[in-house]
Amino acid sequence: MNTAVFSYADLLAFTKGVFVHFGMSDEAAEIAAKNLILADLRGIDSHGIARLSGYIRLQKAGRANFKPNFQILHQTPSTATIDADLGLGLNSAHAGMLLAIEKAKQVGTGWVAIQNSNHFGIAAAHAILALEQDMIGFALTNASPLVTPTNGKERMLGTNPICVCFPSNHNQAFVLDMATSAAANGKLEIAQRMGKDLPPNWVQSSEGMASNNAHELKAGGALLPLGGHKGYGLASMVDILAGVLSGANYGPWVPPFVAFLNPLENLPGNGIGHFVGAMRIDAFRPAADFKQHMDNWIDRFKQTTPINENKPVLIPGELEALEAIERMKNGIPVHTLVIDSMLELVNETGLTMPSQL
Amino acid sequence: MNTAVFSYADLLAFTKGVFVHFGMSDEAAEIAAKNLILADLRGIDSHGIARLSGYIRLQKAGRANFKPNFQILHQTPSTATIDADLGLGLNSAHAGMLLAIEKAKQVGTGWVAIQNSNHFGIAAAHAILALEQDMIGFALTNASPLVTPTNGKERMLGTNPICVCFPSNHNQAFVLDMATSAAANGKLEIAQRMGKDLPPNWVQSSEGMASNNAHELKAGGALLPLGGHKGYGLASMVDILAGVLSGANYGPWVPPFVAFLNPLENLPGNGIGHFVGAMRIDAFRPAADFKQHMDNWIDRFKQTTPINENKPVLIPGELEALEAIERMKNGIPVHTLVIDSMLELVNETGLTMPSQL
Repeated sequence: MNTAVFSYADLLAFTKGVFVHFGMSDEAAEIAAKNLILADLRGIDSHGIARLSGYIRLQKAGRANFKPNFQILHQTPSTATIDADLGLGLNSAHAGMLLAIEKAKQVGTGWVAIQNSNHFGIAAAHAILALEQDMIGFALTNASPLVTPTNGKERMLGTNPICVCFPSNHNQAFVLDMATSAAANGKLEIAQRMGKDLPPNWVQSSEGMASNNAHELKAGGALLPLGGHKGYGLASMVDILAGVLSGANYGPWVPPFVAFLNPLENLPGNGIGHFVGAMRIDAFRPAADFKQHMDNWIDRFKQTTPINENKPVLIPGELEALEAIERMKNGIPVHTLVIDSMLELVNETGLTMPSQL
Repeated sequence: MNTAVFSYADLLAFTKGVFVHFGMSDEAAEIAAKNLILADLRGIDSHGIARLSGYIRLQKAGRANFKPNFQILHQTPSTATIDADLGLGLNSAHAGMLLAIEKAKQVGTGWVAIQNSNHFGIAAAHAILALEQDMIGFALTNASPLVTPTNGKERMLGTNPICVCFPSNHNQAFVLDMATSAAANGKLEIAQRMGKDLPPNWVQSSEGMASNNAHELKAGGALLPLGGHKGYGLASMVDILAGVLSGANYGPWVPPFVAFLNPLENLPGNGIGHFVGAMRIDAFRPAADFKQHMDNWIDRFKQTTPINENKPVLIPGELEALEAIERMKNGIPVHTLVIDSMLELVNETGLTMPSQL
């Protein structure tokens, strides 16, 4: 195993310390760290502490602002548009979601578009804030282009995830959090580390030819949209809601996450964009009724006759919720390459490296 | 060719006449016919006049009500839940969308869940009502179960479509209208007529085995969700918004469209369910700015470097909009089997059969 195991609390404290060291307020660093490390807790290792040094490099390049002044540009009783002042999406989408929830309390639903932001971690981190309010949560974001539209060989869309979550009573909440590409980059990295070929229809070559090469992106290829042209449509929907509607950049103009690549010139918008929403369940029917039927929905789907008795039907978010319980108890495995990036941050900041479990 | 061509106006008048004959008011029949024949106009032949006799059979079976009393069960400034009184979705989703638009005018967005309904035709028919108001339109519906969740071999979900549409200035509007299954039943019927095998991952056998047999559904097999487990998640999201939130049936309990199959017993809800929404663009940013950027988005995506120079990148809804222009001008081809079903309605109603072009 080229991983070592750390406690959730230690990774959280370390991450918060790094953000504070680079100028974030204590309160903002707490929010950013919690949202980032939630990815590691839920087993989405590509979106957690593995990205911490990337956020720091963006700040050093002047492309992320650790003391942003979030500003409401426009609002109605059920909507708002926020300028995130180049803050991290870890914070701006959180603030947007809290505003959406307040609006939903007043008029039934709340929808917030966010421009001039940076990556927001896992979409679920923001959407699930709605659950404890007996609301349905939504979180979408656009991202730098890696995906081709159907028939194209040019990278035009990000992996543009969609998260939607629904509360229930006795079951884990339904939490769908999915990239609109066939597979996100994290799954390619896993195949690279294992020296494996990819399944069909995950990537294509720079000339648009079918490929199962896990290194195809480095050779100028692209990710493919989920299931072909429908995934292209869904990724476009996310790009338009998060990018065009908010006043952020969109399509090929979304700035790259990596600090060593510069944004294009003559950008049509500001930073990257998110779109979050909250719908109060009792704006439609009593929350107790909904949650009882949601449990019935989940129970019935878990009882679907399986193809293989040992592989039951799963509910979206079920594995991630189980992983979070397991990792909270037994710790979070962190890959050696990520540990190296943490050690560099230790050298630079003078913070103490968390000890391995 | 086993088709004959009819004018849009004649198909519309015939359909309206049939609905009126079976008891619908003139006004309701006009709305239902327009929404149904829009499918034929846009080239979605499976959802248009081909379904007319099916709606009539549902009415005769006492499962569709042609004189419904739509009732608002619950509402807030941005939401409502409607009991459609077993009316056709062609009418109830239309009414729901008009209510959503009114709410959006007041508070920025409007969202309407509809229970106790029947099939609503193509989702786009309802969502596009938002476009002329400079709003973004959404329409979702659940449907009778044909699709298996990942790992399952039991039909649990409908083809549960998602439509979202965005206005622009000089381009055709962006209209994404997609089933959340890999392919809808209409595409299987085309393969059946042509005697062709299906692409991989469209269907599986009753035992959950991979299949490319276009007749697999009749042998007890099932449709597969778009791109695997993500499509299962999306179809579930639609089912929960349209079914669980509205108080309609959901999952395996959604009543069958065909009148010769009875609904299950002990249903958890009423009829089938829809979910529609409208977001005022100027609740987020000035509509003129948005539409200018939307044109820029569309223009840029159409210029994506294509894999094959003869197959440019298309915008969602582009082909359907072109088809509608072509068919409005030159007529709508109708399959012989559908013409037979129209002739049966002629015999029964005494209406005049439209003449072929």
